[in-house]
Amino acid sequence: MEKIKIQNRPFGPFPTMLVGADVNGKPNYVTVGACGVVSLKPMLYISLKSTHYTTAGVKENGYFSVNIPPADLVEQTDYCGMVSGKRIDKSNVFVPFYDELGKAPMIKECTMNFLCKVVQVIPIDDFEMFLGEIVAVYVNEKCLTEGKPDPLKINPMIMMGASYYDLNQLLGNAFKAGLKISEGK
Amino acid sequence: MEKIKIQNRPFGPFPTMLVGADVNGKPNYVTVGACGVVSLKPMLYISLKSTHYTTAGVKENGYFSVNIPPADLVEQTDYCGMVSGKRIDKSNVFVPFYDELGKAPMIKECTMNFLCKVVQVIPIDDFEMFLGEIVAVYVNEKCLTEGKPDPLKINPMIMMGASYYDLNQLLGNAFKAGLKISEGK
Repeated sequence: MEKIKIQNRPFGPFPTMLVGADVNGKPNYVTVGACGVVSLKPMLYISLKSTHYTTAGVKENGYFSVNIPPADLVEQTDYCGMVSGKRIDKSNVFVPFYDELGKAPMIKECTMNFLCKVVQVIPIDDFEMFLGEIVAVYVNEKCLTEGKPDPLKINPMIMMGASYYDLNQLLGNAFKAGLKISEGK
Repeated sequence: MEKIKIQNRPFGPFPTMLVGADVNGKPNYVTVGACGVVSLKPMLYISLKSTHYTTAGVKENGYFSVNIPPADLVEQTDYCGMVSGKRIDKSNVFVPFYDELGKAPMIKECTMNFLCKVVQVIPIDDFEMFLGEIVAVYVNEKCLTEGKPDPLKINPMIMMGASYYDLNQLLGNAFKAGLKISEGK
């Protein structure tokens, strides 16, 4: 297998997430690939440019939401990453809903929603990384299989290179697929 | 669409990456979902438990590699997340190769490889987040289409829930899929 050296850039795969926050009293949404786990605690990070419109809302409220847009929302999702809430009101792109805590708008059309409480803010160059404790999780009832969230029904989008992809098929289960090797040794 | 509230836990999607480091003079690999971007700079983060075997190697060398295992490596990949290098020598699970800089082993069987130089270490509970500047990127020549890395040929695995999935199809391009909406407004 021949390897070739290419430009020093990230390439993915990254999750495609919509981050929600109330800014100036209205729901605002921004698309991020910079979202994920950082420990085994129920926590998600997001990383936002300090000057972004959503960033002000996250700081003001101390909360943000992370929403998984299903593949059929690719146009709306990409749109929310293209235009700034500073110039354009994105509050009507989706239908918002709130946990009983309030704090940050979640997106009804997204198949899974996480409400996160900011517990740590880490400056990284001109970005800020927000670590958020997960305080509420919602999933569409239709996306359950035998009472559990089903990844293929949740139907997330993955960013890789400059494109979005959906999921294909189950390859194996974590801490199980490797048993054949570990037991063979 | 009925929403139901479930347990406060992350669910994914997360990338499935193999992190490589030399530990005690031998290549060692660990599977992580805690890997991604944190700003627009050519940088990747990984987050590792402080007590993990690989963590010592990353600290000692100041470098780590991030390797994208293709879907047919699901068993080997899961295995590297199941067993610790403290107990089991994982140096023979894959064929390592090195950039001219040396510093950290990359995995020949992985379709894309990033060599990263640690530029910041952030303690998060019992984990450490390493921010690594990307200093070399390799891709399998077979995974190019018209000279560019092709996500479907790179064929990464995505972790979601407790399972691994591969990618299905291109849904749209970033900063293009949303044009229809932005131009309609």
